[in-house]
Amino acid sequence: MTKSLKEVKANLDYLKKLFIMPDSPDKFIEFGHELLEMIHGFFQEKGGIHSSITLLELSKIFDQIAIPHSPQLIKDVLSEIKTNIIGHSVKVGSPYYIGHMTSAVPYFMILIEMIIAALNQNQVKIETAKASSFVERELVAWLHALIFNKRELFYKKNIQNHRVCLGNVTSDGTLANMTALLVAREKAFPPDKDDFPGLRIAGIDQALRYYGYSRGVILVSSRGHYSIKKSANVLGIGEENVLSISVDNNNKIDLKKLKRRIKRLQDKTGHKRTKIIAIVGIAGTTETGNVDNLVALGDISKEAGTFFHVDACWGGSALLVDEYRSLFTGIEKADSVTIDAHKLLYCPMTMGLVLFRNEKDLNYIRHSSNYVIRRNSVDTGRFTIEGSRPFACLKPWASLKIIGREGYRLLFKEANQSTNYFKKILDNCGNFETLNKPELFILIYRFLPYVVKKQIRTWKQELSLAQNDHQKKEFLHKLKKLNHLVNSLNIKLHKALRRDDSSFVSRTLLESTSYRPQKVIVLRAVLINPLTDKSILNEIMMTQNRIGMKIWQSFEPAYLRILKELT
Amino acid sequence: MTKSLKEVKANLDYLKKLFIMPDSPDKFIEFGHELLEMIHGFFQEKGGIHSSITLLELSKIFDQIAIPHSPQLIKDVLSEIKTNIIGHSVKVGSPYYIGHMTSAVPYFMILIEMIIAALNQNQVKIETAKASSFVERELVAWLHALIFNKRELFYKKNIQNHRVCLGNVTSDGTLANMTALLVAREKAFPPDKDDFPGLRIAGIDQALRYYGYSRGVILVSSRGHYSIKKSANVLGIGEENVLSISVDNNNKIDLKKLKRRIKRLQDKTGHKRTKIIAIVGIAGTTETGNVDNLVALGDISKEAGTFFHVDACWGGSALLVDEYRSLFTGIEKADSVTIDAHKLLYCPMTMGLVLFRNEKDLNYIRHSSNYVIRRNSVDTGRFTIEGSRPFACLKPWASLKIIGREGYRLLFKEANQSTNYFKKILDNCGNFETLNKPELFILIYRFLPYVVKKQIRTWKQELSLAQNDHQKKEFLHKLKKLNHLVNSLNIKLHKALRRDDSSFVSRTLLESTSYRPQKVIVLRAVLINPLTDKSILNEIMMTQNRIGMKIWQSFEPAYLRILKELT
Repeated sequence: MTKSLKEVKANLDYLKKLFIMPDSPDKFIEFGHELLEMIHGFFQEKGGIHSSITLLELSKIFDQIAIPHSPQLIKDVLSEIKTNIIGHSVKVGSPYYIGHMTSAVPYFMILIEMIIAALNQNQVKIETAKASSFVERELVAWLHALIFNKRELFYKKNIQNHRVCLGNVTSDGTLANMTALLVAREKAFPPDKDDFPGLRIAGIDQALRYYGYSRGVILVSSRGHYSIKKSANVLGIGEENVLSISVDNNNKIDLKKLKRRIKRLQDKTGHKRTKIIAIVGIAGTTETGNVDNLVALGDISKEAGTFFHVDACWGGSALLVDEYRSLFTGIEKADSVTIDAHKLLYCPMTMGLVLFRNEKDLNYIRHSSNYVIRRNSVDTGRFTIEGSRPFACLKPWASLKIIGREGYRLLFKEANQSTNYFKKILDNCGNFETLNKPELFILIYRFLPYVVKKQIRTWKQELSLAQNDHQKKEFLHKLKKLNHLVNSLNIKLHKALRRDDSSFVSRTLLESTSYRPQKVIVLRAVLINPLTDKSILNEIMMTQNRIGMKIWQSFEPAYLRILKELT
Repeated sequence: MTKSLKEVKANLDYLKKLFIMPDSPDKFIEFGHELLEMIHGFFQEKGGIHSSITLLELSKIFDQIAIPHSPQLIKDVLSEIKTNIIGHSVKVGSPYYIGHMTSAVPYFMILIEMIIAALNQNQVKIETAKASSFVERELVAWLHALIFNKRELFYKKNIQNHRVCLGNVTSDGTLANMTALLVAREKAFPPDKDDFPGLRIAGIDQALRYYGYSRGVILVSSRGHYSIKKSANVLGIGEENVLSISVDNNNKIDLKKLKRRIKRLQDKTGHKRTKIIAIVGIAGTTETGNVDNLVALGDISKEAGTFFHVDACWGGSALLVDEYRSLFTGIEKADSVTIDAHKLLYCPMTMGLVLFRNEKDLNYIRHSSNYVIRRNSVDTGRFTIEGSRPFACLKPWASLKIIGREGYRLLFKEANQSTNYFKKILDNCGNFETLNKPELFILIYRFLPYVVKKQIRTWKQELSLAQNDHQKKEFLHKLKKLNHLVNSLNIKLHKALRRDDSSFVSRTLLESTSYRPQKVIVLRAVLINPLTDKSILNEIMMTQNRIGMKIWQSFEPAYLRILKELT
């Protein structure tokens, strides 16, 4: 594709002017105006969520191999962005987009991003981030108090105490989880007087050898976010040492199985001794939004003498609202907790947080260098995995003020009502099956035509009355066959919905439904956009039902064949 | 400190409206106007770089323990930001701020950040980032071609080929270096048919055991960025396994010493066998801006059969300009190269890039999950350490168009002239000593009153004529004593300059000057702001000279005592 943008001759005076905030703001306002209209147009435009352009067509737009030689006019580049990028972006802010945790953001966030870019502070160091370092500490203390709720004196002493660090602002939830597990790893193999300098210095193999372990493991439920496994890779622990514990039908970690597993691990002796580096609880699983029993996990971790991490990247912000606190009881026992600001705090992409109960824990990974973050400095960069970091914390700091706990309470109430309403209309329709008890605004369901639903119900009943193993096996086989068909149906439906593109839900594969151990294809709705109202949910349900029933026609013959075979 | 901001009663309609881009842009424009004036005021305001407020005073402003309960008006929060944050931010964009790699950014970047926030794409997945995934691939291909310069066909085939990944956009340079070293680590201990699943799965200790090594090491010069050591910690390799090779007087890795070290490592046998995971070259050291001999490092790495990584976070962007390419000769032999967009591409905080010569290398860390980034997907999230990522790549993508290679050539020419000019006036003044040969806009120097400078010169000459070891030792002792005094003087000067606050240079401690092995306190100027002109540099030099000479008065008695003692 050839570009016909006007090129300008490079000119130092012109370039220098780009670095000066224009004396009269006219120019800036003019561009700002244009931009605003572009953005506005994007949001108002009717039509698809994902734009109808194909990936092949897109790959032909963005296939320039050479870096542009001469400067191009700002307005030309903005207009290219408008046509080629904005026009083909995903409308994640649309109230019809209820498929991922990426949602609409309040418009004031755009103003805050302008401030962040204009100030261009680098949080690594007080010499490049003065007030912003203090803002970060204040925000971290807020979230720490929200989770661990220590005495006021603790926060008075530590909120701006540069000798300790209550937590980090990270680029995202993966980095936040990784930071938590890094600290857990160091604490599992700490320095030992003059004999051992700690895993950090000596590496994992020396650490295992010194402490006499064959391996270190992390325990998490099968709903654990993939960042846990990724962290185990990055941290050198090894992905196979993330031990997955199955969940109950509510997608919560099976405590009995966890305890049995811990016992088996702790019974190993000699060259098979195993160190449990961390037990990870989930407060809002990515797939289903359900929360582990954190009280029990806290007790179990304590008894096992291991680090207890809670991945609350999704749900943690709900702690802002009293009505939700009981769901998280026990989170205060965690050693570390992670929360994403770009999820339920409604901030733009991206910002994670990791908080440590013990204000000294981050000292395990503290570091310094001569040219930046000197040893006795007050620099926040001493405690982070990342080096240079933007002033991202201004976004949640400002939104917690502008929206307030009361405002978040109303937003979550609305999200909860949307979730319940969507569940209700799906249940009432007859052609859907809802598959989880939503706790934090995520509903799992599948399209299941009434006739199949009835048949499954019958077989399930017969299964429960089965006299012997042979009979049981037979019904399980029947259910399996049907589910297999329904899986294909839902994959087809999901693809058709993507083509229809008037709304968006996501899809995943779950083993933790009433059909376990069979894996079931499910649709997944994340209902947090406050603009997603009842009429929109009705529309989405009806579209799915209509398209689903149409696809079902082509499945019916296969269904009838199966029935004939099996009955 | 009590806050007197007006609280408003939380109200769902009001909250919902925050999520709607206002129908008439008036409201937004109004805020935009105000913001612009705030930002403008901040840049124009005369006075200090860092604001005169003390850290103690700041800690009293940001000491609210409770999260705000009721919503506050946007305008009130903006006004709080203006007073408490903007007013006490570091003016990193000031032409008098020449102390860190954080510089001014062109104002159009603010417009780009607005677009990024408004679109709120999440780069992890095509379902949350459509056109933006293609923009990222195009940008990555541009930088890949800049470094590795493969045939056009290679780029035509791979620029939008979702089966491979030429590189990642990361949150910063540390993550970029960590990604490179993660790939190096996996490649050093890869899967081996059915016998070994790879380090990634099995962990470091199993990998070392399987391949029969006692440890894995990373080699880098003593100028290596602290993120290399940090990566060795995070990756479980252990900080002590980053082997530091000393540099020559030009701050480039000492190739003889490197070769000797490699030979010693490779000679180890039996239970001491050592795997060299990577050799790291530096293309623009953080402290001095000098570039290693990359041709030689490429050859040495090849001979040693190890992964060759080049940390070009600072300097890499200079490859845009033909005049600088010779400095980097050999970089095309690297297995991986890192570049920061927020440094010499003049983008706002923060964005790093890591590029891999071999388009298949990132497959070593490829991963997938059911609910996001399915195995056969086209999602960029399959290859990254981070999970959720913002559409940050739009910033360098747009600025490479708006500024163009030609524009960057002029900017770097200007930066080079500033550096040379500053060196010249410091050398001419008589009371300074410049200490490196600048290659990429970083000048290292110290305040050295003429009388001391003369004395040092005399002793250095006598040292070179010394007849025997005893005499030599004596002169070295003398120089050491004087340098000790000059170190204190420069620390004091740097602190006084911080108090004066009319300009800013940074300070560090270097072993690689003509006084080696003695460590010398040096001042460090990073001269990349195109608005830093000759008259500003004169001003800065004169201020440093004036304040330096004043402090020198209190050092003179000690100096005379030392002279008396020693002569």
